[in-house]
Amino acid sequence: MTDATAKRRGRPPRTESADTRDRILTAAREEFSERGYEKTSVRGIAKAAGVDSALVHHYFGTKEQVFEAAVEVAFAPAQNAPAAVAEGPLDGVGERLTRFIFGVWENPATRKPLLAVVRSAVNNEAAAAVFRRLVVAQVLGRVAAQLDLPDAELRAELAAAQLVGTAMLRYVIKVEPLASANVEQIIARVAPVVQGHLTGP
Amino acid sequence: MTDATAKRRGRPPRTESADTRDRILTAAREEFSERGYEKTSVRGIAKAAGVDSALVHHYFGTKEQVFEAAVEVAFAPAQNAPAAVAEGPLDGVGERLTRFIFGVWENPATRKPLLAVVRSAVNNEAAAAVFRRLVVAQVLGRVAAQLDLPDAELRAELAAAQLVGTAMLRYVIKVEPLASANVEQIIARVAPVVQGHLTGP
Repeated sequence: MTDATAKRRGRPPRTESADTRDRILTAAREEFSERGYEKTSVRGIAKAAGVDSALVHHYFGTKEQVFEAAVEVAFAPAQNAPAAVAEGPLDGVGERLTRFIFGVWENPATRKPLLAVVRSAVNNEAAAAVFRRLVVAQVLGRVAAQLDLPDAELRAELAAAQLVGTAMLRYVIKVEPLASANVEQIIARVAPVVQGHLTGP
Repeated sequence: MTDATAKRRGRPPRTESADTRDRILTAAREEFSERGYEKTSVRGIAKAAGVDSALVHHYFGTKEQVFEAAVEVAFAPAQNAPAAVAEGPLDGVGERLTRFIFGVWENPATRKPLLAVVRSAVNNEAAAAVFRRLVVAQVLGRVAAQLDLPDAELRAELAAAQLVGTAMLRYVIKVEPLASANVEQIIARVAPVVQGHLTGP
């Protein structure tokens, strides 16, 4: 700690608020992914972050809003990926989308917030709404927009269903041999199906 | 109530135990599907069934065992369906399996226990184990056995992934337009994918 930061003690300066926000979001992601939406409380998040509950409400609002912020931040590094998935030749979109999804699931840092979203969305309507906004609007909406077909949204959702179901059985419920299969083997089988849903007859 | 049954009061006769078991299982299905596995307690099930907790333990054992019994009974009418799905010409197995799964989900009576299984399996390892035993061993195992291919189990699981994912997005998270689409339209798109996973190159 420098003399300058030491001097600022006693009353939290404005520059510390970004740190506090981050600490709250990190704690929120941990709590939501471990306990699920319903069993997580703003009080529990505040305690894990070492702050007062009022501060959590001050920065984020309701529990649903904390959840959305926690999940959105986790998705932030991947925000550009849907564009990369949607752009490029249409006959490779199935493989690009499949690689993107498994890339996120295979990465331990992004698997946790995804687990939080899935666990929570399955059990709670508010969290399901967040899932619909984030995943459907941001990822599937962009993919569908590239298809230029009247049933593009339904196609994108059935493609997503193959990906969501595979992720559920492999990473959440851990069904064998799927759970231990090489990820490239899975991608090789799933990508053509995703492509078929998106651009097939 | 007849005179004969009135006379049997005071000490529960053996013939009433089947009713009590059924009442406990019905209450258990309600509790698990509404609250999920973790938030459901043996005490809560007992209360809903109007019996003592000790009786629930006496008939079924632990919470995991109550859960498995509750879910197994719900699946009982469909126990013969996997055989019907697996038998018959192999080039129609995709459509038979798809129709079987959507038939269960579209039926309000069987949707509830399925929701209980999905909600619980996603959030709890004990419930996930029940899902693996019931769904994987009983349904997918029989389908895989008919395929006579070295990678039959993985094929059956990837087919199941399409079905599980579609059910998740349609019935649990309720993503539109998938949630409101005509079920025949969904079957027409999903069945060939399931068939492809099972018997494709």
